[in-house]
Amino acid sequence: MTVRADPWCARIITLFPDAFPGVLGESLTGKALRDGRWRLDAIDLRDFGIGRHRNVDDTPAGGGAGMVLRADVVGAAIEAAAARAPALPLFCFSPRGRVMDQALMRDLAAGPGVTLICGRFEGLDERIFEHYPVQELSLGDFVLTGGEIAAQALIDATVRLLPDVLGNPESAVDESFAGDLLEYPQYTRPALWHGHPIPEVLLSGDHARIARWRRDRAEDLTRSRRPDLWARHRAKQGLDAS
Amino acid sequence: MTVRADPWCARIITLFPDAFPGVLGESLTGKALRDGRWRLDAIDLRDFGIGRHRNVDDTPAGGGAGMVLRADVVGAAIEAAAARAPALPLFCFSPRGRVMDQALMRDLAAGPGVTLICGRFEGLDERIFEHYPVQELSLGDFVLTGGEIAAQALIDATVRLLPDVLGNPESAVDESFAGDLLEYPQYTRPALWHGHPIPEVLLSGDHARIARWRRDRAEDLTRSRRPDLWARHRAKQGLDAS
Repeated sequence: MTVRADPWCARIITLFPDAFPGVLGESLTGKALRDGRWRLDAIDLRDFGIGRHRNVDDTPAGGGAGMVLRADVVGAAIEAAAARAPALPLFCFSPRGRVMDQALMRDLAAGPGVTLICGRFEGLDERIFEHYPVQELSLGDFVLTGGEIAAQALIDATVRLLPDVLGNPESAVDESFAGDLLEYPQYTRPALWHGHPIPEVLLSGDHARIARWRRDRAEDLTRSRRPDLWARHRAKQGLDAS
Repeated sequence: MTVRADPWCARIITLFPDAFPGVLGESLTGKALRDGRWRLDAIDLRDFGIGRHRNVDDTPAGGGAGMVLRADVVGAAIEAAAARAPALPLFCFSPRGRVMDQALMRDLAAGPGVTLICGRFEGLDERIFEHYPVQELSLGDFVLTGGEIAAQALIDATVRLLPDVLGNPESAVDESFAGDLLEYPQYTRPALWHGHPIPEVLLSGDHARIARWRRDRAEDLTRSRRPDLWARHRAKQGLDAS
């Protein structure tokens, strides 16, 4: 095993540092963490809170429900993160951000790591975005209580693309979004289960036929489930989305 | 506090039951869990494994990288989950599933709960979908090592919509996707930070002007960041997306 001197770094600004690594400490991502292929650098936002109670939030200017994370508190945490090595691009999570996708994960996996600000409550004081180059990312069109789960999703999807993390590099080549197609259906033993057999072709040993069957199934699935991906796939091939 | 006799139930089939509640044990979702507004019912998939090593997976029929979760093992866990009360709809996570959104979260929050199968490796033997009414959900167009983080995202986004979980019910009314618009920018004390003032209107005390400013900002943000949401919003109002 060759381990990078400077492993990919997930630096997290959060009110819940104990939530990390969480499930990222298990399975492939956990083994990669223990093997030094990536590292976790958690920064407790509470350490930058104001006064005896270390307050991090206050009521929204102009009124309204909820609490807003203070610019001075989040700003101090960002400065502390920026003072650590290596220098890392800065992200936070918001429904108004760029929707995360596999292309983003590949870009991030190729870099030195990320600093992730995990918001809570009604989010960050807007002036953070005026003052720092924070890129906003969205996990999807729904609202979470905080950014921690989105951060874990980003780290999981990125770490598995780092060199030598997946047991078999082919896994990342075959899978959904590696091309533009969804992945074909998978089967394993037993050959017959509750009256459902494994498709005969998969047991035929005819590798060309198996490859063709899988390609057809991946295309069928993509066309029926994700017309948007299908159209993109066909366009790349210079074909109609039919 | 009125606590439901039968709280919303998150039943999880997973190889990593210790990953729950994870960050869901913190903050609002953690308080709601302790208050009995929802409950967690984790089922360890390993308990249904085959033989002395309790194997849960095997190599793909037809060859290829990775491992596939066995239909007999997952099926036994599904049967065990179905034998527990209350009866719950069955979901799993896959890139080919329906992309999760706030409308789904609202529907699920209105029901009795969910059973979530957390896949790992190359996913489930396809026959699970032939035999059981499993609805596939996708967290987005990227690949995770397993379904646990997607499950936590679903639970977080759903639990916060349950009655009395948010400190202030207005928080759920104002926020992104509650209508079709992204949320307006938020500010809080201090009034001036690193040369950036809070917009004057928000300190004016003129509630009508503040409401108008926020509406305009939410529209600007939605139009520039999410033309797709903007078009839907305008269509509902019988207007062009301009």
